[in-house]
Amino acid sequence: MTTAFQFDVLATDGKTAARRGRIRTPHGEADTPAFMPVGTAGSVKTLDNRDLDELGAQLVLANTYHLFLRPGHDVVRDLGGLHGFTGRAKPYLTDSGGFQVFSLGDFRKITEEGVRFASHIDGTRHMFTPELSIEVQEALGADIIMAFDECIPYPAEDEYVRQSTERTVRWTRRCLGAKTRGDQALFGIVQGGMSEELRRWSVEQTTALDLDGYALGGLSVGESKPQMMHIAAFAAPLLPAEKPRYVMGVGHPEDILEMISFGVDMFDCVMPTRNARTGTIYTSAGRLNIRNACHKTDARPLDAECACPTCARHSRAYLRHLFLAGEPSALRLLTIHNLSFYFAMMAAARRAIANGAFFDYHAAFREKLASSE
Amino acid sequence: MTTAFQFDVLATDGKTAARRGRIRTPHGEADTPAFMPVGTAGSVKTLDNRDLDELGAQLVLANTYHLFLRPGHDVVRDLGGLHGFTGRAKPYLTDSGGFQVFSLGDFRKITEEGVRFASHIDGTRHMFTPELSIEVQEALGADIIMAFDECIPYPAEDEYVRQSTERTVRWTRRCLGAKTRGDQALFGIVQGGMSEELRRWSVEQTTALDLDGYALGGLSVGESKPQMMHIAAFAAPLLPAEKPRYVMGVGHPEDILEMISFGVDMFDCVMPTRNARTGTIYTSAGRLNIRNACHKTDARPLDAECACPTCARHSRAYLRHLFLAGEPSALRLLTIHNLSFYFAMMAAARRAIANGAFFDYHAAFREKLASSE
Repeated sequence: MTTAFQFDVLATDGKTAARRGRIRTPHGEADTPAFMPVGTAGSVKTLDNRDLDELGAQLVLANTYHLFLRPGHDVVRDLGGLHGFTGRAKPYLTDSGGFQVFSLGDFRKITEEGVRFASHIDGTRHMFTPELSIEVQEALGADIIMAFDECIPYPAEDEYVRQSTERTVRWTRRCLGAKTRGDQALFGIVQGGMSEELRRWSVEQTTALDLDGYALGGLSVGESKPQMMHIAAFAAPLLPAEKPRYVMGVGHPEDILEMISFGVDMFDCVMPTRNARTGTIYTSAGRLNIRNACHKTDARPLDAECACPTCARHSRAYLRHLFLAGEPSALRLLTIHNLSFYFAMMAAARRAIANGAFFDYHAAFREKLASSE
Repeated sequence: MTTAFQFDVLATDGKTAARRGRIRTPHGEADTPAFMPVGTAGSVKTLDNRDLDELGAQLVLANTYHLFLRPGHDVVRDLGGLHGFTGRAKPYLTDSGGFQVFSLGDFRKITEEGVRFASHIDGTRHMFTPELSIEVQEALGADIIMAFDECIPYPAEDEYVRQSTERTVRWTRRCLGAKTRGDQALFGIVQGGMSEELRRWSVEQTTALDLDGYALGGLSVGESKPQMMHIAAFAAPLLPAEKPRYVMGVGHPEDILEMISFGVDMFDCVMPTRNARTGTIYTSAGRLNIRNACHKTDARPLDAECACPTCARHSRAYLRHLFLAGEPSALRLLTIHNLSFYFAMMAAARRAIANGAFFDYHAAFREKLASSE
């Protein structure tokens, strides 16, 4: 439906449903399976654009809710949209604001029209509708925008899940109707809670709109890991093979690899960045916390197998010292490492798929993880 | 007294006492007049080593008091001293810990032996002596270390100023006696409060020890700017011309240029870095505060005349947004700019001295500053 957006499946794994692809946008390409770091307020916390370039970041997710409230989507639009405002000429994706309205806004009230809420920043009252979400996302100007949905919490009453899933489909149609720009791809979001029947219905209704891509929403919201994996494994293959499939807000490295094996192409999660800021570090030998006393005089890098600039230049002892001394540089150096771990994992997964070896790569990753815990 | 350390005066201005020189240390050179950013805990706050390299930083000051308390000088020593610990192979200078013991420590008690104090971090009791200061600074392994002194507050009783100034000279002799490493330069610190007589006496006693360089301490401690400038103008020319002259803790750009005209070679100050973290920005048209509403939609860089990466890439509007949203990246981007302003000013001053044009450069700087306020 937009000529600027394109998705190509370049290779399939064979043993699993994993696929290696490439998204083309007006601001460049993104290799899939892709991990999108979260740049909530127009900045991946602690990093600058050059850091992102050096990490190999392509798609970055920015939060519509946050940018609507501060600095305001009109400010971002007048400064050239997200690309002009942030000075980063690579692809952006914005979420619809729905998830944050529910998780951060106060005094939420959902109607057919939309969601009333109060800003978590200054208490001001607002109403988000599918039409406003699209208007804001068009002002922000990301390459991929998301339809306005309700991310159904877990647990929830069956009847509520059904009503909400139906409403999200109606909202998705309204989003499509409100869209005016031809240079942004619109993705729809499949809901349906933990019900196979509702998930299938949501897929059918949403894919009937012939959107540019499809997301599975409402996962990693409190359900058990087997439940989450069951729904992802059930719903991912129902989505059209020629469009990108995106699971929102997931997650742990092992969960991402599992979902890649279901044929999912895109992921976003705050974990690598948020965990870095609390000192939790991903390594090829499992997680570590840099605050621990055992690192006090440890001259080794965070991860001997990591090629990131933090591991190339700094010891665990120095990073622990910076962290405990409250030095802001610690948060950036650890964020660079954690994102580097995620990006290296995604790059290895893409290579494995292209070589028809993803099943073995995934098994080796699980093996290593199990032996380190 | 150390073969590794060398100072050469490369040019003098002619109209003023300003001189262009070069310090050589085991870890490289530093062009003078030099501005040293403050890396209190072994990191210039918000920056990493590559940022410092790209800014052109040569000498960086680290605080003995902070590193003694955390992570401990033994930890730093065992990881290769400051250079090994921080991964930065360029010159470091450590202060003696004296100033921080007085300004940050609790329950201070000064005796001839040294200073008892309680840690501002955890309340633990310690005693700093000239001998311990040297022991700690030898463990930290900076290229230039400072004699242990008392930075006399202002105002202070005449008798106290005399007694303290005499004690600092005795402490300086003890520092020289305690020194064991041959690869570190030791600088003495001239005190004497606002008394010309005591300053002259302190210079005579301290320079008689034939140290590698000399600092003027006890300035910018509460006295008026004319008082400070009077003492600096009086004492700087008394110091030997063939050794570097260092005014500690100064300061404002205009104060640095003024003191360069007195023949001072080295400066350190937290102002560019600390001000950046509160949003106060140095520009060629005067200071601005990035929080101000007037920058909300301003697409211009912080300073159109600045060549720093922050000004090359980002608008005032974006930097203001990041700052107000509490994004850690704002603090780093603003620190890079402020230090870039200081380093560009120092580089211009050095070029002006080499061209015999410092008097005019200084006059033009004052003129611009006056017209912008």
